[in-house]
Amino acid sequence: MTRFEPNLRIPGPTALPPSVREAGGRQMVNHRGEEFKALLRRVETGMKPFFGTDHEVILLTCAGTGALEAAVVNVLSPGDAVLAVTMGAFGDRFAKIAEVYGAAVTRLEVEWGKAADADSVRAAAAAIPALKAVLLTHNETSTGVTNDIGVLAAAVREVAPNALLLVDAISALGAVPFAMDDWGLDLVVTGSQKAWMAAPGMAMAAVGPRAWAAGETARMPRFYLDLKRHRETAVNGETPWTPAVAVLYQVEEGLRLMQAEGEGVYVRHAAAQAMTRAGLRALGFQLLADDAIASRTVTAAWIPDTLDWKAFNAGLKRRGLVIAGGQGRLKGRIFRVGHLGSVTTDDILAAVGVLEAVAIEQGIDVRPGAAVAAAQQALLAGTGSAA
Amino acid sequence: MTRFEPNLRIPGPTALPPSVREAGGRQMVNHRGEEFKALLRRVETGMKPFFGTDHEVILLTCAGTGALEAAVVNVLSPGDAVLAVTMGAFGDRFAKIAEVYGAAVTRLEVEWGKAADADSVRAAAAAIPALKAVLLTHNETSTGVTNDIGVLAAAVREVAPNALLLVDAISALGAVPFAMDDWGLDLVVTGSQKAWMAAPGMAMAAVGPRAWAAGETARMPRFYLDLKRHRETAVNGETPWTPAVAVLYQVEEGLRLMQAEGEGVYVRHAAAQAMTRAGLRALGFQLLADDAIASRTVTAAWIPDTLDWKAFNAGLKRRGLVIAGGQGRLKGRIFRVGHLGSVTTDDILAAVGVLEAVAIEQGIDVRPGAAVAAAQQALLAGTGSAA
Repeated sequence: MTRFEPNLRIPGPTALPPSVREAGGRQMVNHRGEEFKALLRRVETGMKPFFGTDHEVILLTCAGTGALEAAVVNVLSPGDAVLAVTMGAFGDRFAKIAEVYGAAVTRLEVEWGKAADADSVRAAAAAIPALKAVLLTHNETSTGVTNDIGVLAAAVREVAPNALLLVDAISALGAVPFAMDDWGLDLVVTGSQKAWMAAPGMAMAAVGPRAWAAGETARMPRFYLDLKRHRETAVNGETPWTPAVAVLYQVEEGLRLMQAEGEGVYVRHAAAQAMTRAGLRALGFQLLADDAIASRTVTAAWIPDTLDWKAFNAGLKRRGLVIAGGQGRLKGRIFRVGHLGSVTTDDILAAVGVLEAVAIEQGIDVRPGAAVAAAQQALLAGTGSAA
Repeated sequence: MTRFEPNLRIPGPTALPPSVREAGGRQMVNHRGEEFKALLRRVETGMKPFFGTDHEVILLTCAGTGALEAAVVNVLSPGDAVLAVTMGAFGDRFAKIAEVYGAAVTRLEVEWGKAADADSVRAAAAAIPALKAVLLTHNETSTGVTNDIGVLAAAVREVAPNALLLVDAISALGAVPFAMDDWGLDLVVTGSQKAWMAAPGMAMAAVGPRAWAAGETARMPRFYLDLKRHRETAVNGETPWTPAVAVLYQVEEGLRLMQAEGEGVYVRHAAAQAMTRAGLRALGFQLLADDAIASRTVTAAWIPDTLDWKAFNAGLKRRGLVIAGGQGRLKGRIFRVGHLGSVTTDDILAAVGVLEAVAIEQGIDVRPGAAVAAAQQALLAGTGSAA
């Protein structure tokens, strides 16, 4: 069936709403002028409630990976003892960055598809003398699992009250409630192309006082990603280097849409998640993550041995549905459906409809309409009405 | 006088042409999909003639400063002997980055407003045992001076044939002819918001075989800005981390416009430069750089003691003309007019007209029409017709 714009259901970049697209096409301004200063301040301030923080939010011109690097190099010195709690490709990346810069990294490897449990994290933290920092993933994009960061943070605090808590919250922050200050987190990062409904190119780091203090003695080299330089220029409404102005226009507009929607943002993501899971299950797919730890922003499903994945995915693409494959050790073994940012329950109903049609085409035994009916039931059960 | 869009005459970000703005407002695509792969390859390939290189062009999601850092950390080790030839704020920044990452930096400081001369560079290079790299600025944005990179490179080669030549060509590459391979340069960087007529957020690095070879043993830590990782994924038409997709759309469109214009790009910049200089001189301003070394992309002029700069600049802004002040030690002492990227000779005529009107308003003794006449004469003398 003809479709005039793909249904982009990867876990970022996410599809841009019309007003965000328009923002991306705006003319440039002087990045040292008053108009830009006001823009930067609106975004920095507007982001804080989504982080659940009163601390500074620093805007960086880079991908999320750059923000992970910023989190590491701004607070650590070579040789520092670091615990990296990993449960997927992005947790591995975070740990790798710390290693590249010379930290003494101990990995607590959680099985991919599972969440970290507090007891294991507490024990691992307790076993490391002079533990300087713990690297945590909030939402592991490669597996569709969300950690309970508040609980994990509390567990670390019990045994290592001085350890810094550095959190990769790139792929779910903004889509789910988050409480950086209440949970006692020190540095939390996210990226523009996820829940924020903007194009990629900017990352945001919320930095607490303990992280700033650690930065005063941290000896890992840094320049472009130096958060202190960003903090110093932010006082004047500027960034130290030329920022990705057009991406910032989009972030501001996405933020405006999120502010207007209020709590509805979280309701919408929860509904999209429930619909996706119900639809995939009705098609007979096994989901990677249990319900209790499943991500609100991305759902991973196992590819059955009986399914010709290439033919299946080609069928989806022909109908304009774009989903993601697996990463790292799960490459070729799972597929992932993104449901974050501008996602609507209509988008998910359409996606489940295409998945169902192609599944039937590929010989999966399913009654026509069963998957979309399941998704619809999940929507109505969760919200009582279309979100 | 009412003006509906400012005349943005800063040396980047530059004003975006309409089709580039449209490109910035396009919908996202899967950055691991075929459409993106083709886009990345078109840009990588299309950039090479402007660099004057057959080597790989790597696309990074960062500001130009990130690309300067990439140039340093990908080829050097802590302790390496580096000669930094500086002639302004950006040359200082390049040197500072090398210092932060532990290089043993010797600075050859050229007076701000002058260009580096080959004899001094040769002597400085000859005096450093085991010289590993020389940092050069092509076009110093803070002073409006362009170095003769071919001549400087040859001078270094005479005395230190194995030294790597790392060049900041951020603010003029694309606007003037450049010959990386003929000049024997090893690593050259530029940024999307300059001659390329796109928004900021992407930087490009052309990397020669000696730089790649140096990277194999270079021990400065790097991850986000690791060029080798970018090279490895580029083979598959991908970037290692999520790229600034919308900025890349704009870079591609800017590149398309430049390709269509051909040599006219260089003619246009030369005309804009000549007009700017003639107009400013007719208003009695002393220019920082002599004609022989003057930048084709940005012109700096001294602020006379008799001029109330704040009132003058406020007058310009009221009429929609946005120019830049000085940086570093020239802050408050000069102003800078950018003439690069989408700049037209009409833009410059309009800018000179506003400068003239405000100059008269501020009591500068100039016959009405004298500056715009001088600019027009420079245009007609240089090209025989409007470029």
